[in-house]
Amino acid sequence: MENLTRIALLQARAEASYQANLEKAVSMIREAAALGAKIVCTQELFTGYYFCQEENHDWFATAEDAREGPAAKALGPLARELGVVIISSIFERRMAGLYHNTAQIFDASGELLGLYRKMHIPDDPCYYEKFYFTPGDLGFRAWNTRHGKVGVLICWDQWYPEAARATALYGADVIFYPTAIGWHPKEKAQWGAAQHSAWETVQRGHSVANGCYVAAVNRIGHEVLPTMPGSDGIEFWGQSFVADPMGKVVASAAADEERVLLCDLDFTQVDSTRTHWPFLRDRRIDAYAGLLQRAALG
Amino acid sequence: MENLTRIALLQARAEASYQANLEKAVSMIREAAALGAKIVCTQELFTGYYFCQEENHDWFATAEDAREGPAAKALGPLARELGVVIISSIFERRMAGLYHNTAQIFDASGELLGLYRKMHIPDDPCYYEKFYFTPGDLGFRAWNTRHGKVGVLICWDQWYPEAARATALYGADVIFYPTAIGWHPKEKAQWGAAQHSAWETVQRGHSVANGCYVAAVNRIGHEVLPTMPGSDGIEFWGQSFVADPMGKVVASAAADEERVLLCDLDFTQVDSTRTHWPFLRDRRIDAYAGLLQRAALG
Repeated sequence: MENLTRIALLQARAEASYQANLEKAVSMIREAAALGAKIVCTQELFTGYYFCQEENHDWFATAEDAREGPAAKALGPLARELGVVIISSIFERRMAGLYHNTAQIFDASGELLGLYRKMHIPDDPCYYEKFYFTPGDLGFRAWNTRHGKVGVLICWDQWYPEAARATALYGADVIFYPTAIGWHPKEKAQWGAAQHSAWETVQRGHSVANGCYVAAVNRIGHEVLPTMPGSDGIEFWGQSFVADPMGKVVASAAADEERVLLCDLDFTQVDSTRTHWPFLRDRRIDAYAGLLQRAALG
Repeated sequence: MENLTRIALLQARAEASYQANLEKAVSMIREAAALGAKIVCTQELFTGYYFCQEENHDWFATAEDAREGPAAKALGPLARELGVVIISSIFERRMAGLYHNTAQIFDASGELLGLYRKMHIPDDPCYYEKFYFTPGDLGFRAWNTRHGKVGVLICWDQWYPEAARATALYGADVIFYPTAIGWHPKEKAQWGAAQHSAWETVQRGHSVANGCYVAAVNRIGHEVLPTMPGSDGIEFWGQSFVADPMGKVVASAAADEERVLLCDLDFTQVDSTRTHWPFLRDRRIDAYAGLLQRAALG
């Protein structure tokens, strides 16, 4: 495994059709590989609009099998052809009545190394994910890919220090966060800057606390679902970024551009940061039982 | 308990004598109270120089009893006289051979509500704290003071999301961090900005992840210990700050000024932030067992 690895974050605008999104992702992955990227990650649920803006049973028909569906059939062979690790975020149909928000981790050999099923599921106006997704049952993990030790978490997970820590303790040198987050258009003027800043800050905090890289891959575009004409929709705020092990933003994209965002990671920085700031050495694992409680009071 | 509470962070330069530091703290607390502050917090180990720059047995003689020592005798009555909550950080002698880095929490009645003994103890060049301080055995807590629900953590704790979360789960609306952090003079040019940014960022991240206020109280001054003439010493970087429940810095001091830093906290913001971003609702306490492990591998 090399110490210097170029990664690519695929920040895109969603198209109406599954096929168009898959073709765009394939095209962006080819571009990323041509530019030297070795690990590529899509935005969350990259195969379609962010349908969780409503609770509509029709959307379940867009889910797919994580091992045998069209994304797996396209991206596994593509990973092998290009020799790149691909992390792709899809709507998984596990069986009738059981769906997850899932990331596939394809090694550069094309093998599906594993799945990460989103553990923390939001439910907020226009983000009705609890209607669609059963919370993940595979826990937190990291994978030794050909090009790096990679952890994967998804969107709402990014607000949880527990998720980042548990992933880091599995040896992740970089944690990818496929994401779909944006502004409610009516809130943007008053709250938009503070919301975006909080989102970036908490993830930079994860990189500091864990001495590892963090890579957040968000979508762009103002999406008004075809099933909800006249609704306000969500204005996805893009601004995908990579933070280094000291929390510095070392690559970032704009709020409104489709972008293959490249960043060179130096995994020796994980080692040197953690020896200079040895937080892992001093964790009080004897005193963290309270973290397994809902609250300490009441 | 009121919803609007003015707090004061006492950012000071350490003097050579215990008595001078205690008198300065008393003076700053009086000033803070006169300016309307209801909760006041000192910097870490406010009664002296940051002696952990060396391992020298003589410094043990400067420790004191947390309940009956001179700081308790001065600050308890002062809290009662002024009607303010006082959080003071001292070098505690618990018994022969047993010392802690401890914060006292005095309610506005003058009562010593409790102690927080620093749980995470660093050991780094010029920060040889493991030589002096036994890691705390009182765990993470919060206290219902007359003027707010207050959590206290100390310096090295600020790099640990576990500590902030455990404290928040006890109901803290604001977490105070008495601190003594600075630059090695020879590292400052190359690393100083990145180190300070990481320190501020990880704590702002705690405020976002927990939807509460965070208040970091650091010292200033370039301290070369009288027992180490000719050493480089540490240049403490001040820059005490308060972050609101969305991680925004709402008050901050400079790197080189003594300052009674005031900030008005609106505890209703904790409630509204947490209902709009309900992270606590969705914690996966069934899946956090890995946090109680040293690492998941090896």
